[in-house]
Amino acid sequence: MRLTPTVIKCKAAVAWEAGKPLVIEEIEVAPPQANEVRVRILYTSLCHTDVYFWESKGQTLMFPRIYGHEAGGIVESVGEGVTCLQEGDHVLPIFTGECGECSHCKSEESNMCELLRINSDRGVMLSDGKSRFSKDGQPIYHFLGTSTFSEYTVIHFGCLAKINLAAPLDKVCVISCGLSAGLGATLNVAKPKKGQSVAVFGLGAVGLAAAEGARISGASRIIGVDMNASCFEQAKKFGCTEFVNPKDHEKPVQEMTDGGVDRALECTGSVRAMISAFECVHDGWGVAVLVGVPNKDDEFRTHPFKVLSERTLKGTFFGNYKPRTDIPGVVEQYMNKELEVEKFITHSVPFSEINKAFDLMLEGKSLRCIFSLDA
Amino acid sequence: MRLTPTVIKCKAAVAWEAGKPLVIEEIEVAPPQANEVRVRILYTSLCHTDVYFWESKGQTLMFPRIYGHEAGGIVESVGEGVTCLQEGDHVLPIFTGECGECSHCKSEESNMCELLRINSDRGVMLSDGKSRFSKDGQPIYHFLGTSTFSEYTVIHFGCLAKINLAAPLDKVCVISCGLSAGLGATLNVAKPKKGQSVAVFGLGAVGLAAAEGARISGASRIIGVDMNASCFEQAKKFGCTEFVNPKDHEKPVQEMTDGGVDRALECTGSVRAMISAFECVHDGWGVAVLVGVPNKDDEFRTHPFKVLSERTLKGTFFGNYKPRTDIPGVVEQYMNKELEVEKFITHSVPFSEINKAFDLMLEGKSLRCIFSLDA
Repeated sequence: MRLTPTVIKCKAAVAWEAGKPLVIEEIEVAPPQANEVRVRILYTSLCHTDVYFWESKGQTLMFPRIYGHEAGGIVESVGEGVTCLQEGDHVLPIFTGECGECSHCKSEESNMCELLRINSDRGVMLSDGKSRFSKDGQPIYHFLGTSTFSEYTVIHFGCLAKINLAAPLDKVCVISCGLSAGLGATLNVAKPKKGQSVAVFGLGAVGLAAAEGARISGASRIIGVDMNASCFEQAKKFGCTEFVNPKDHEKPVQEMTDGGVDRALECTGSVRAMISAFECVHDGWGVAVLVGVPNKDDEFRTHPFKVLSERTLKGTFFGNYKPRTDIPGVVEQYMNKELEVEKFITHSVPFSEINKAFDLMLEGKSLRCIFSLDA
Repeated sequence: MRLTPTVIKCKAAVAWEAGKPLVIEEIEVAPPQANEVRVRILYTSLCHTDVYFWESKGQTLMFPRIYGHEAGGIVESVGEGVTCLQEGDHVLPIFTGECGECSHCKSEESNMCELLRINSDRGVMLSDGKSRFSKDGQPIYHFLGTSTFSEYTVIHFGCLAKINLAAPLDKVCVISCGLSAGLGATLNVAKPKKGQSVAVFGLGAVGLAAAEGARISGASRIIGVDMNASCFEQAKKFGCTEFVNPKDHEKPVQEMTDGGVDRALECTGSVRAMISAFECVHDGWGVAVLVGVPNKDDEFRTHPFKVLSERTLKGTFFGNYKPRTDIPGVVEQYMNKELEVEKFITHSVPFSEINKAFDLMLEGKSLRCIFSLDA
């Protein structure tokens, strides 16, 4: 007979105020309810999205809150109705889910689940509108349905990818978010053919993952575009063969490539870069894929003839990966040595020094910084 | 031994001035030079593009000129180096070509041949920059490399699709241009799956051909969108199941379809319709295809989030058909009774009354009006 799960006391990094250092606190984590899973987090890493919402500039304030969404962990207990996971399974929490029942989940093409699609404004669980975290009776908000900056967290089963037990969680935890977003943008959406040319706009973690996808696809030329030339050296490890700083050139990518690249990936979120990425692909067959998230008032503009001359513009969310169906396969690509994950992990700090990771990211020094909670 | 071709005297409808009635004249047609073919035109039809350039509003004037580009004919003689066609072959002249050698022709995806891509500003043959038409020693300009309003014309071999000898030229002549542009936009680019919903913006010949493509694809709903409700009755023959007049509604297509259509085709050239077509496709998997030709100063604008939520925007030129490789197959679709061509032919007049066809089109009364030169 399975024991009924009870409240767990554990450590978590709590954000009490916007932009203020996190505080490691002892908190209480309630048992998982129907369709929920309680996960012991072993490794988690920091992504720009955590920093963006922690800074909360112009957003609805929602504090105290536990951030974190890139992680690897082990199922501790499952709530009623959860049949696809059991205690001991290794999982990657994903900030967007796959209910398996809605029109998006049933579509072969979409991963934008209606029920569990990313929702940064929801700080509570779906089933009862309550938090599973508390400290001295005060509820603490969830973040993106994952809240992985905690030794234990509660997640909807639809936001957990069950992965190979042999996969090292301290490495594959970074597959949870940005790495997959960039990789999938190339492999699932841009789909360069072997020998084609690819331009990647923005050489942060997502852009480098897009370049990694181009490398895996056998692209002949991978042109990295960034306003910051200091990232070019690092980008060579991810397959970039050439670099362009848009500050130095006008229409350089077209000039370098005899009419345009075969594929372009926009990974900055700048609307100017989006337009450049679209207009630099070759007429007749070029495909541009938007990955980066723009400001809410931005407008994408182009001459319709750029479209009519047989260019394609596509957008992607989380690299078009369905979290539960597809992410275990990305872990297998790492296990098969096709995908190189280690090079994304530039730093690691103890969980107790989590605020250092925020500083490193704000200073632009890290790609991914890992925290071990397995101490 | 093959006889050397000599000059042919024949009748042609000559445009002497912009917007003035054509005049049936006896002209001289020189023999085909290297890579050229002289074709006896049996049937030709009138397309908006002929009318647009005949009106020559704001364009470089190029008169006298012989218009016409939708037609069916028989090879009369071939110039040096032409090996793919011989006397007696049945052909459809195409306003854009396929040299077979350039990067576009070698790409599986593009039909935008570098050598023979549509060029409305060129009124002469490529090889020597001269016209093959004259009257009393005065050269007459060619149009789109086809000039089919003549009993005989000279065309680059790359602009001739060799078709089934059994195909009736008085029917399949309309496959030369607009019908294929709309049909291919659906079948080759939008590619709706069986049971999906399709919206078609603009119910002229091209839009109706796009709807015909949706019918052939097994679309469950084909929503015709046009500002002119009088075309709705006719559009039913082409598979349209529902109609929307944008004057009567705000965002009607999204409302009718629970979040958007699966595929949309823009066949008017209005930039407002282009934006509507893109924004009315479903997030997650919707594809919008631009077919209609915009004004040169138009700007396509949308919020980048519309793209990021996994919509695709594509453009097409001549339905992505490669003229020589693919158009014979469209004729076969007609022969197999898959494609219905007759319903596009609403009128026919004797060649001597060609100006009536211009009137019918300007009054919006005809889809396609055929002229027989086989008298």
